[in-house]
Amino acid sequence: MSTISEKIFSRASGKNAKANDFVIADVDFAMAHDGTSVLAVKSFKEMEEEKVWNPDKIIIPFDHLTPANTDITAALHHEIREWIKEQKISNFYDVGEGICHQLLPENGFALPGKLVVGADSHSCTYGAFGAFGTGVGATDMSEIFASGKLWFKVPESIKITADGNFKEGVYAKDLILKIIGTLGVAGATYKAAEFYGTAIDSMSMSGRMTLSNMAIEMGGKAGIVPPDKTTFDFLDGIAAEEYEPVYADADATYSSEYTFDVNELEPQIASPHQVDNVHDISDIKPTKLDQAFIGTCTNGRLEDLEVAASILKGEKVAIRTLIVPASRNVLIEAVRKGIVETLLEAGAVIGSPGCGPCLGGHMGVIGKGETCISTANRNFKGRMGVGGFIYLASPATAAASALTGEITDPREI
Amino acid sequence: MSTISEKIFSRASGKNAKANDFVIADVDFAMAHDGTSVLAVKSFKEMEEEKVWNPDKIIIPFDHLTPANTDITAALHHEIREWIKEQKISNFYDVGEGICHQLLPENGFALPGKLVVGADSHSCTYGAFGAFGTGVGATDMSEIFASGKLWFKVPESIKITADGNFKEGVYAKDLILKIIGTLGVAGATYKAAEFYGTAIDSMSMSGRMTLSNMAIEMGGKAGIVPPDKTTFDFLDGIAAEEYEPVYADADATYSSEYTFDVNELEPQIASPHQVDNVHDISDIKPTKLDQAFIGTCTNGRLEDLEVAASILKGEKVAIRTLIVPASRNVLIEAVRKGIVETLLEAGAVIGSPGCGPCLGGHMGVIGKGETCISTANRNFKGRMGVGGFIYLASPATAAASALTGEITDPREI
Repeated sequence: MSTISEKIFSRASGKNAKANDFVIADVDFAMAHDGTSVLAVKSFKEMEEEKVWNPDKIIIPFDHLTPANTDITAALHHEIREWIKEQKISNFYDVGEGICHQLLPENGFALPGKLVVGADSHSCTYGAFGAFGTGVGATDMSEIFASGKLWFKVPESIKITADGNFKEGVYAKDLILKIIGTLGVAGATYKAAEFYGTAIDSMSMSGRMTLSNMAIEMGGKAGIVPPDKTTFDFLDGIAAEEYEPVYADADATYSSEYTFDVNELEPQIASPHQVDNVHDISDIKPTKLDQAFIGTCTNGRLEDLEVAASILKGEKVAIRTLIVPASRNVLIEAVRKGIVETLLEAGAVIGSPGCGPCLGGHMGVIGKGETCISTANRNFKGRMGVGGFIYLASPATAAASALTGEITDPREI
Repeated sequence: MSTISEKIFSRASGKNAKANDFVIADVDFAMAHDGTSVLAVKSFKEMEEEKVWNPDKIIIPFDHLTPANTDITAALHHEIREWIKEQKISNFYDVGEGICHQLLPENGFALPGKLVVGADSHSCTYGAFGAFGTGVGATDMSEIFASGKLWFKVPESIKITADGNFKEGVYAKDLILKIIGTLGVAGATYKAAEFYGTAIDSMSMSGRMTLSNMAIEMGGKAGIVPPDKTTFDFLDGIAAEEYEPVYADADATYSSEYTFDVNELEPQIASPHQVDNVHDISDIKPTKLDQAFIGTCTNGRLEDLEVAASILKGEKVAIRTLIVPASRNVLIEAVRKGIVETLLEAGAVIGSPGCGPCLGGHMGVIGKGETCISTANRNFKGRMGVGGFIYLASPATAAASALTGEITDPREI
């Protein structure tokens, strides 16, 4: 009679944890990136602890402002690197290795049944592997650095079932946008979503990561896909430690349940400036674009670049088109498969792996009044540049739109 | 009895121009990049001229802060793009196409006998093709935008002869560093250098561009290589218009002459913080590095990446290693030849084509006290980040140093 979250917190806290209980849980892996590690390390130093709880369980990727964009960033990067050396943190990924939420899965830290906490709101991505992945603030992270533990209120769970087959041109990104549009940006606040259904079962790990990644955009504490053969195959040979898959009991309690029919799903667009401002692409009025951006922890994986390349092949983009692979491995694979060559020939600009312009820090900030179609997870006002407008979509929709210079249904290209 | 410069200015001014004459010359091609076009366009607008003199003779590449790094850059880029549309400038290269000094040669604007003026100090690069390439300020450029003309004092010329064969591990970059170390940063002030000798004759266009590019670092107004078969082959099929090669007369007057023996040349290093602080690499004390940077208008071409890849192949870099191809074409060729895969596997970070971190604006700023070995042309204090130290070297030396984490002779790898 337990949900996946209740089972994970029971194991991690050593007691029978039920929804709404407060527990102290052992964290299996803890992540902070260049943006949040600065504060986490500052706070850790203020505790006057000499050593972190376990240097092999802490993972620090530099991804947000990489390579360093300003003197201040360079100085902060330098400071964190020194601390990493001093603390002998074994899992450090310097500039150009990729986005935290891609590196943890690639390196086998996102594992079924584990509690994986990141100092970044999109740490819910790890739920794609059946982990309880969640984001905390930087000072909470400093507590984990010191003790390996943190308090949690065990979340209630909601059950989201998506059945059916994706039509051509429709992807996991469209499904999660549809879900967020339906539930609203606060529709799952402090809840753990569990994803079920034939559409989820047939999804690659890449698609599932897109899904779980955006759980936070409806307020979710986590977004969990029950692990299956697809999960185990992905993890084969790369898991950082042993793991025990965890599943919900048949009589587990959900605070609400939702079902989606993927057979009928169209490409979706989240219009400015809220992620739940979601529309079928056929309902979007003609919208001129200045920039297209394909990348991020939501949609910067090999499958995403492959889809973009299949649309851009032999064509020329009509607008600035920035493509930022989610990791070095993604980029190397994309080079080997000829995807990078195709994208470059089409006129796309390939950035070095990392978060790219997603957060408006560098590498493709948009100007006042400019409009960008983006495969990222947030279209908040000013996020990619003051006075800019962001439309969220799948890589296929972004690529099709890059070719025409306006929002375009990928099925019409 | 005329130098190359005197002949070019005679043709461009329509009178017999001799060194130290003041002339009004017709400019063949005019270039401004995203950094300087902002002021040039502002100044042009203040003139209340309706139209530029010739929209097909103006070339505007965006390369310095691309893709846009801040809200301000994004807004300025937007403004310049609007002006480019309004003025129907036909040769616009948006973000990711590459560095101005690479794009002008690639697109056949750097031509023998032409007067090619850029609003960038390294416009002397075009001298590699036997053009008089020189840099002017942005307000001077606005005069050219309006009239196609500008006043010049015809420079005196100096003759630099480099004979011999490059030893393995020694390149054009080492020669130009040696020349600058010998003449000093003011050794050629307001002079046009003409390069002669068997070492120059045997150099590829890529090497010659490295040489001419750095003429300004000894104060030179231009650095000219007499065009030959290597030049004509490069330009075959790409020249933007017809051209007439120009050569110095046997009895031309040079204000000074220098000779260099390339047979004896070692890899050179320009230590912080002046470009003429040049030493044989064997005289450099052990120097730990934080970052290596291969790229720029000096050394971001295919040959440069190829040399770096040959050194990095199958190895792993010990420090942050940023590689920024000089243009989209360079990058595409490097992908096709497997160079990019090799560099990525070795742990290098590949930036999108442009100036990269050369000017400390983004994409790899170094922190206070950090040290970078760079293939760029300037090691001025603070250029790549406040409190940083820059050592200039060839791509081979930079790649060898990336492997060891300290300044390393490429012949010892």
